[in-house]
Amino acid sequence: MNTVALLSRDTLLLAQLQDAFARRAPHLSAVLAEDPQAVQAQVAACWFPLPGSLGALPNLQVIHSVAAGIDHLAHDPSCPELPVCRVVDPGHRQGMTEYVRWAVIHFHRGFDRVLGHQADRHWERPPQCPANRFRVGVMGLGSLGSAIAQDLAGAGYDVRGWARSAKALPGVQTFAGAGAFDPFLDGVELLVNLLPLTAETRGILNRRTFERLADGAALVNVGRGAHLNADDLQQALASGKLRGALLDVFEREPLPADHPLWTTPGVTVTPHMASAASHDCIAEQIAENVRRLNAGEPLLNSADRLLGY
Amino acid sequence: MNTVALLSRDTLLLAQLQDAFARRAPHLSAVLAEDPQAVQAQVAACWFPLPGSLGALPNLQVIHSVAAGIDHLAHDPSCPELPVCRVVDPGHRQGMTEYVRWAVIHFHRGFDRVLGHQADRHWERPPQCPANRFRVGVMGLGSLGSAIAQDLAGAGYDVRGWARSAKALPGVQTFAGAGAFDPFLDGVELLVNLLPLTAETRGILNRRTFERLADGAALVNVGRGAHLNADDLQQALASGKLRGALLDVFEREPLPADHPLWTTPGVTVTPHMASAASHDCIAEQIAENVRRLNAGEPLLNSADRLLGY
Repeated sequence: MNTVALLSRDTLLLAQLQDAFARRAPHLSAVLAEDPQAVQAQVAACWFPLPGSLGALPNLQVIHSVAAGIDHLAHDPSCPELPVCRVVDPGHRQGMTEYVRWAVIHFHRGFDRVLGHQADRHWERPPQCPANRFRVGVMGLGSLGSAIAQDLAGAGYDVRGWARSAKALPGVQTFAGAGAFDPFLDGVELLVNLLPLTAETRGILNRRTFERLADGAALVNVGRGAHLNADDLQQALASGKLRGALLDVFEREPLPADHPLWTTPGVTVTPHMASAASHDCIAEQIAENVRRLNAGEPLLNSADRLLGY
Repeated sequence: MNTVALLSRDTLLLAQLQDAFARRAPHLSAVLAEDPQAVQAQVAACWFPLPGSLGALPNLQVIHSVAAGIDHLAHDPSCPELPVCRVVDPGHRQGMTEYVRWAVIHFHRGFDRVLGHQADRHWERPPQCPANRFRVGVMGLGSLGSAIAQDLAGAGYDVRGWARSAKALPGVQTFAGAGAFDPFLDGVELLVNLLPLTAETRGILNRRTFERLADGAALVNVGRGAHLNADDLQQALASGKLRGALLDVFEREPLPADHPLWTTPGVTVTPHMASAASHDCIAEQIAENVRRLNAGEPLLNSADRLLGY
């Protein structure tokens, strides 16, 4: 029987993944790090693995992220140089698309302003413009970012997208590479970040980026917390350069109760809820990769560790 | 030259409509009630006309609502028995679709819960279910309701619709007539009201209706304020039968600052912002109906005053 080691600092997630493997891949043995059987594991399924946990598994052949991102593997410095795969769940895409659609309408139609008025019992229609005059910029055009850009284009928004390498998407004006970043940002009223976290993208949501946006623009971060320079965000909100920010990801999660972002005017905090691959889908995709590993077939959704995604 | 009398208690709207007629239909004379030329008007363009204002115009041939609804004409008891038309703006439909899509995602994904947690700096992922297990009921399947039901079906929701007479809409389970109202409501987790206001639909959002919904359901009212029994809503929210309500329309607008709905837990007030026909579109459609009137052609978007829409 093949063994999958489940590695995470999130104990609730570990229990949920064990249930999902029992339901969807009962032929596999999905065990926790402390289980003696873990040393037999050929595959580790990880979400923020504890430091040292990967290095303790001598028979590993593949390291599997249970998410679309692989940046969290760096949480364990003992992570060996093995092939890395990630999970791509169509439901994941739908969840993210819903979250971003909500965010775009929220700022486009001025729900952010209206919700702020209720405490004052203040009745005021926010300024309105048609969707095709509201420019949304999507950073990151991978599986999720492409789906979102096309969803927004279908809803009539003026959508542009930026990625490391060139992409063609119907209805979306695309920009590629570092040299096209500034032109991409010009006039953007809502910036949505879906980039993978890499050395190049860390801190990319900073003052310089905010300065290029339209005055009173808004920011949606559904990438990773480390994309954002929180000090620069607070300054941009205080100056009015940015009007609001919807943040779903943070460098530390849960966001600590004493973190200033909880109470920064204009910031809305959501608890990393935009999207997650379903537990069943994680179990199924990892089981399929175990099968491919045994059969010597190419693995699904393999990631490039140098690129970071 | 043809004359259109602009009649409303909303003086800002009157000025905006005069501008729009000047831009879009400069061959017409668009005048206010106090203008001596108003007595020549064959067409009145109305939004909550002041009592007596319609009866003061002896040459009227058509009464035009500047909105999709015609219920506001009853604000003027002197309203004569003439043909009534309304304005149907495709942008109107898009605006309403955006508002309702935001509302559906808001409750489906638990943004209502999350926004309530921020003041307590409380990080908790709300329960999530796929869109196809979230049942949305749309009351009213006219131009707006049909567009919304289909938009939500396209987004993957479990959508059902109810109207006075039978309709067929791809992807939407439809129910027709009073006898089908209770079955329509069964298990609905989000009820969206887009009905026209008539004698039959006044007060239809009441305790009896709420009782049939799923426990913890939410309500979105984008019809008219008089559809809602506000006392019943407050009781349903207090008991937990309903979890939230997003209200865009009220019997008195602006909603008075001392109205209890501003502060009822679970109620979100928006300032009748879901959608409005653009001023340019109003001017263009009324100008076209003036042309048709002069040419003896059938009028666009004529309404049935007995039906009320």
